[in-house]
Amino acid sequence: MRTSALFTDLYELTMAQAYAAEHMDGTAVFELTFRKMAANRNYVVAAGIGDVLEFLANFHFEDEELNYVRQTDEFTEEFLGRLKDLRFTGDVYALPEGTLVFPNEPIVQVIAPIIEAQLMETYVLNQIHFQSLAAAKAARVVEAARGRSVVDFGSRRAHGTDAAVKVARGTYLAGGAGTSNVLAGQMYGIPLFGTMAHSYVQAHDSEVASFEAFASMYPETTLLVDTYDTLAGVRKVVDLSRKLGDRFHVRAVRLDSGDLGALASEARKLLDEAGLQDVTIFASSSLDEYEIQKLVNSGAPIDAFGVGTKLAVMEDASHLDMAYKLVEYGGKGRLKLSTSKVLHPGRKQVFRRVENGRMIGDVIGRYDEPLPGEPLLQPVVRSGVPITPIDIEESRRRFQHELTRLPDHLRAIEPTPVPYPVSFSTCLDRDLDRIRSGLARGT
Amino acid sequence: MRTSALFTDLYELTMAQAYAAEHMDGTAVFELTFRKMAANRNYVVAAGIGDVLEFLANFHFEDEELNYVRQTDEFTEEFLGRLKDLRFTGDVYALPEGTLVFPNEPIVQVIAPIIEAQLMETYVLNQIHFQSLAAAKAARVVEAARGRSVVDFGSRRAHGTDAAVKVARGTYLAGGAGTSNVLAGQMYGIPLFGTMAHSYVQAHDSEVASFEAFASMYPETTLLVDTYDTLAGVRKVVDLSRKLGDRFHVRAVRLDSGDLGALASEARKLLDEAGLQDVTIFASSSLDEYEIQKLVNSGAPIDAFGVGTKLAVMEDASHLDMAYKLVEYGGKGRLKLSTSKVLHPGRKQVFRRVENGRMIGDVIGRYDEPLPGEPLLQPVVRSGVPITPIDIEESRRRFQHELTRLPDHLRAIEPTPVPYPVSFSTCLDRDLDRIRSGLARGT
Repeated sequence: MRTSALFTDLYELTMAQAYAAEHMDGTAVFELTFRKMAANRNYVVAAGIGDVLEFLANFHFEDEELNYVRQTDEFTEEFLGRLKDLRFTGDVYALPEGTLVFPNEPIVQVIAPIIEAQLMETYVLNQIHFQSLAAAKAARVVEAARGRSVVDFGSRRAHGTDAAVKVARGTYLAGGAGTSNVLAGQMYGIPLFGTMAHSYVQAHDSEVASFEAFASMYPETTLLVDTYDTLAGVRKVVDLSRKLGDRFHVRAVRLDSGDLGALASEARKLLDEAGLQDVTIFASSSLDEYEIQKLVNSGAPIDAFGVGTKLAVMEDASHLDMAYKLVEYGGKGRLKLSTSKVLHPGRKQVFRRVENGRMIGDVIGRYDEPLPGEPLLQPVVRSGVPITPIDIEESRRRFQHELTRLPDHLRAIEPTPVPYPVSFSTCLDRDLDRIRSGLARGT
Repeated sequence: MRTSALFTDLYELTMAQAYAAEHMDGTAVFELTFRKMAANRNYVVAAGIGDVLEFLANFHFEDEELNYVRQTDEFTEEFLGRLKDLRFTGDVYALPEGTLVFPNEPIVQVIAPIIEAQLMETYVLNQIHFQSLAAAKAARVVEAARGRSVVDFGSRRAHGTDAAVKVARGTYLAGGAGTSNVLAGQMYGIPLFGTMAHSYVQAHDSEVASFEAFASMYPETTLLVDTYDTLAGVRKVVDLSRKLGDRFHVRAVRLDSGDLGALASEARKLLDEAGLQDVTIFASSSLDEYEIQKLVNSGAPIDAFGVGTKLAVMEDASHLDMAYKLVEYGGKGRLKLSTSKVLHPGRKQVFRRVENGRMIGDVIGRYDEPLPGEPLLQPVVRSGVPITPIDIEESRRRFQHELTRLPDHLRAIEPTPVPYPVSFSTCLDRDLDRIRSGLARGT
């Protein structure tokens, strides 16, 4: 699905027209960063690069889109003609998807004629901001589950259709088992999961009838037991096992309301007493990493979690102060001094140092500075052409590898009082001071 | 843009196949409601019906979609053949867009063969949940601004592209002036707004040069003054007015960081002293209804607000416990007794009573019950065909009218200790008791 080039803030277009009128054709470097760690987070997970690559590679205005732009009466025919032919011809560097990212580190770096780079702002921000935060949220939920499966059930409460499929993708990226969203399965090739809904039980004249019918259609299914009374529902599953004998292959019962910990224990007892040790317990209902951690720590015999709303809306950290900032134009470093929003000038690189298999700190330096550590930003687009497609399985593996390198206190769900160390190189600090004092003299 | 029929949870498809195998072709009534008012809200605004109508009217599976479904190995060729021909043939009732809605009131009611009605669940919930909450958030921001313009600037931080355009639409529906999102302008015919970004200022060798260039291209523009030092920026606008004389038509300055109230007062003073009473002040930066109310109450001379992140992510109320529930199948009322999720059976209507021009309470009754008050649910689809298209201007007017009927304590931004009165009719309560006791005997 092509995203329209009109997915942009109006000012990107008015500024582009001004650049054109002023013959400002120089190369700009924009960097996408966030200044402060999100609430309740120790790290963010770089995600969404694939959508950015697709958008850039297909960027163009259709005639009907240009006609709409024309109707706003802000644009000359000359500029509309230029828009008609405009394609993205620049270079892009990015953190490989799945990389852990911290404040002030560029996640994406766009190097292109300023008009082109400016017009990408809204979409690049929209996608990377949301997808990186969604993956970070999912990572916490998976962490809390300590090896138990986590399935995304959030599509109905995610903020729109795009958010729904990207939460599904982000959950899988971060180690989740899969999603209930069929479109996400198709788009990203990720595993699908489903159980049954209350409506199916309700539509039958009895709960027993609904269980029998569903289990005969899907022998290894999960039966939802809380429509009328959870433990009575479990007993009906036990009865069904007796009735079916060898033909009973139901894999799990699902609890979706009430005190999940207590109900899971009772349900486990009933199942075990009936010799149904193989029937597992799947829990859902207002779950997030905090609830899951409590359940797991309490020893609740839950084998898998369906996580919906709070994962999908990222309830405790719904946004970051992420911005797409001009750091260089026409070969000169550019800065910003707005209150509490100071920006270091110049194109950058992030150097990550690892000792004994653990990350010990990052330094943000000039892109060509010879600093110790692994340089994280990698080329992903050259002269408008994506270099390699993004592979979700590779991103998923990279994220798992990153986790093993992360110090334990940062991997924990509790916000750390000792954040991961990130500093600017002396060179960059000097560049900031130099340009700031030049500006003080010059303007 | 067609939304794929695969935008569904997997279990909708597995349940549909089971219904088909069981020859369950009866008519189902599903109702979309929420049980509890969202955090910090006194009302929700029904929104998103238009997208639901479009989805239902165009509902079908493309061959490649069916091929994907086939690959999951859960479905028979017989059922896939049935999906290929499946269209939505039912009736839909809904609250007219812009109507205020309260807990337990059906927003949408789908009456159709159970397979069709079941398959609509995920999309209907995804759209109505988000759009209704987004409009409610925007309504609060507009209320706080007390007649000053509110413009949606949230696209970059909204959760994906779909959320971005729908926040733009919801803001306009709720009385906002418009949006910066060009695609939303094209899709919904709503007004576009834009100022300038820091990058434009930074790309010039001086702030003065950027102001001159932009004002010559767009004489009635808004100039962003906080890139380096806000009040120094305002002084440069004053200098520009002296330089241009009669040719100076700049309409506003924009503040985007720091203490907006204090800076607005200082900026107003500088502008007034220079005789620039007509230059207004536009403020943005982490605004929401709470910040705007503080600024307005403090008398800050701000004329318009650009509101982004917190509006777009609905920071203080990002979700509702909205659900799409089966209340009737094959002519029989259906209920649910899950802990704290009890559901009244049967198809319903909402009756709103108004006295002296003010809403005094709603009663939820049987759909055919002769109760006093205005019946709110209206037919919107008959036999699969939408009756009338949704007109955003009409929805916007309806919402304004609704606001004038709402008691003041509910219109306020502060959460009320006295919620709007909504009750179930005696008939519905009796139906619940009757079916509950029948169930207790029968299962």
